[in-house]
Amino acid sequence: MKINAMYAQSGGVTAVINATACGVIETVRQHPADIGTIFAARNGIIGVLSEDLIDTSYESDKVIHALRHTPAGAFGSCRYKLKSFEGNKIEYERIVEVFKAHNIGYFFYNGGGDSQDTANKVSQICHKLGYPINCIGIPKTIDNDLPVTDVCPGFGSVAKYVAVSIREAGLDVASMAFSSTKIFILEVMGRHAGWIAAAAGLAQDTEGDPPHIILFPEVPFIEEQFYQKVYESVLKYRFCAIVISEGVKIVASHFLSNSGSKDAFGHSQLGGVAPLLAQMVRHTLGFKCHWAISDYLQRSARHIASKTDVEQAYALGEAAVNMAISGKNAVMPIIKRESNLPYRWSIGDVALAEVANIEKKMPTSFISNNGFEITLKCRRYLEPLIQGEDYPPYKNGLPDYARLNNIAVTKKLPEFKCCKL
Amino acid sequence: MKINAMYAQSGGVTAVINATACGVIETVRQHPADIGTIFAARNGIIGVLSEDLIDTSYESDKVIHALRHTPAGAFGSCRYKLKSFEGNKIEYERIVEVFKAHNIGYFFYNGGGDSQDTANKVSQICHKLGYPINCIGIPKTIDNDLPVTDVCPGFGSVAKYVAVSIREAGLDVASMAFSSTKIFILEVMGRHAGWIAAAAGLAQDTEGDPPHIILFPEVPFIEEQFYQKVYESVLKYRFCAIVISEGVKIVASHFLSNSGSKDAFGHSQLGGVAPLLAQMVRHTLGFKCHWAISDYLQRSARHIASKTDVEQAYALGEAAVNMAISGKNAVMPIIKRESNLPYRWSIGDVALAEVANIEKKMPTSFISNNGFEITLKCRRYLEPLIQGEDYPPYKNGLPDYARLNNIAVTKKLPEFKCCKL
Repeated sequence: MKINAMYAQSGGVTAVINATACGVIETVRQHPADIGTIFAARNGIIGVLSEDLIDTSYESDKVIHALRHTPAGAFGSCRYKLKSFEGNKIEYERIVEVFKAHNIGYFFYNGGGDSQDTANKVSQICHKLGYPINCIGIPKTIDNDLPVTDVCPGFGSVAKYVAVSIREAGLDVASMAFSSTKIFILEVMGRHAGWIAAAAGLAQDTEGDPPHIILFPEVPFIEEQFYQKVYESVLKYRFCAIVISEGVKIVASHFLSNSGSKDAFGHSQLGGVAPLLAQMVRHTLGFKCHWAISDYLQRSARHIASKTDVEQAYALGEAAVNMAISGKNAVMPIIKRESNLPYRWSIGDVALAEVANIEKKMPTSFISNNGFEITLKCRRYLEPLIQGEDYPPYKNGLPDYARLNNIAVTKKLPEFKCCKL
Repeated sequence: MKINAMYAQSGGVTAVINATACGVIETVRQHPADIGTIFAARNGIIGVLSEDLIDTSYESDKVIHALRHTPAGAFGSCRYKLKSFEGNKIEYERIVEVFKAHNIGYFFYNGGGDSQDTANKVSQICHKLGYPINCIGIPKTIDNDLPVTDVCPGFGSVAKYVAVSIREAGLDVASMAFSSTKIFILEVMGRHAGWIAAAAGLAQDTEGDPPHIILFPEVPFIEEQFYQKVYESVLKYRFCAIVISEGVKIVASHFLSNSGSKDAFGHSQLGGVAPLLAQMVRHTLGFKCHWAISDYLQRSARHIASKTDVEQAYALGEAAVNMAISGKNAVMPIIKRESNLPYRWSIGDVALAEVANIEKKMPTSFISNNGFEITLKCRRYLEPLIQGEDYPPYKNGLPDYARLNNIAVTKKLPEFKCCKL
């Protein structure tokens, strides 16, 4: 009986996480002597715990290949963080039981910092319990906050989406500014770090191009300085295009005290700093504002994915399988930047212990002194990541994304209730 | 001295209005014997009134050709509606003066219903004052609400953007629904008509595909029926993807009375029915919601424009010039649908008097009986309009859009203050 593999997707999905899945599964299929079946756990680690497995053998080569151009998580993802060994021994033991039941010798966990931590712990518990397995974490997160790797797959495509969007919307506002809208605000993802907001800065080719203002969560929001900058931009360029990270804490005491109270639903519940900011600008400067919130559109926009991002996502999946076969364990393949101009990258690896639960912050040197722009250094880092287009095939005017059968594997174990579900 | 032409863009801009400008200018350049210079009025009719004209001769053939793939209004647009003759004689006379001063014999006004009315009135006043001119209106509006023409340029590209976006975000939510977000709401443009929201329905290839619910401004919002449909969708498909037209009037008396008051900023000012709807679903059904508002992104998204739309936009510009040269006046070129399968279209024309200020509503037969979906008839109408991709060229990872010099023409007349500015 051959040793099998298991692959699972975790956390918020991206435009290219399925490209990694494609890299994993296609590479496994090229090594029939080393790996038997590759199962996918449905909804990440929850699928492992509940023995809810998918047999990927039922998917044709063509469908698996189509994963490369399909956004989101084809096997389902999850938001479920395993607790420490001490607090949660039963779940770790269950994972090993499921591995045993299905003869899993290779485990690939595709996610962000939390997932790398999970992969690391799974590796440790297997070792402790004497179960032989090669656990490989595969990076994925639009937040670009994993350490060591030059970039996280998923980020380059969001970066491209955001830069394209602000360039296009900027042209729109420029057209309308004379007699109508003068301010446009685009809210982008990024609760703790301004990586995605920073990427919008790539749209600015020459002085005066949108975006005129970027608001980073790393920079304290100072109302007066912000109004001043908006006003200057309208004076100089007739309009002002603003990109704001969702994580920016808006201090608007003056405005809020004028309005008497918070909004009735509670602003934080409604979500969206863009509408609040728009209201402040309208109220204080009197300019007509429009605002957009891309939300999931930005991270699922496979139609405008970065070719570089797609290639790296695939290559990391491929590398993960090769590392596992060569006997590596508790590592994560990473992107190493070899040079900037021309951009060249290679694949390396790092111990999971070195990446688990460590957040990579955006360097201070990436934000201009006034706090509203990116620096040249930041541009040099970001620019290569959005290079190239990798259009999906279209059918009937729409992207023709993969549809998997996701055939369930017969369960061999008694039912198990996840602790948190 | 040869007769000159004037072109102007009006109202909200689109991803393809510059493709029409390209069609107009390239066609004029092919007829040097008929037309001397083609001027563009800066910011639509305001540029005509203030004699703020651009000499397009200074733009190279290459730059003019690049307008075909450049979104928004390259010469500036405006929101400025001329009043009736009686109330505003001075402005109409000024227009004729500007025409005379620059020897304008052809006037091309590119816009929606209001603009067609303006073009018509300009034609009438010129006739009344004995000034010979050929006034041609050229259709443009993402709202798709001009009568007679099968479709309005700009709509097909918004339609494609919205359908692509809900397909992509739908895959994202499907991945996350097991342990996280179950509801996704996309708010799209359309204050009076649900054309754009309807287009999202094209993303649904088979039963269960997103979007599961479309909320049209044509259908009264009934809270209980909506919740019921959301709940059913989550039960059946594990998630629910909703597209809502910005014009839907949300009746949420129960919810609002629970919360005690309207939000402090006034909901209508904050804009966005999506966050309100999300809050209602969360409050009533307890599901985690995400929501997006595309705003200007949807109408400027040239990167995902419909090829059909681009071709029609260009062809209408071309036709407008040919009609003017052949002596037509006070008409608008239109798209005539010759057949559905395969989709074939031709160019016709209609008198401006027949389109000015008339709004085309979405037929009742385009909305399903339950009020939440599009009918097959609607699909047959919409489907051809999003066919084909027409990608712009990219440079450094981003669309390489045209940059015009927009060289101003020397003014010949005394200053004039527009009535409303």
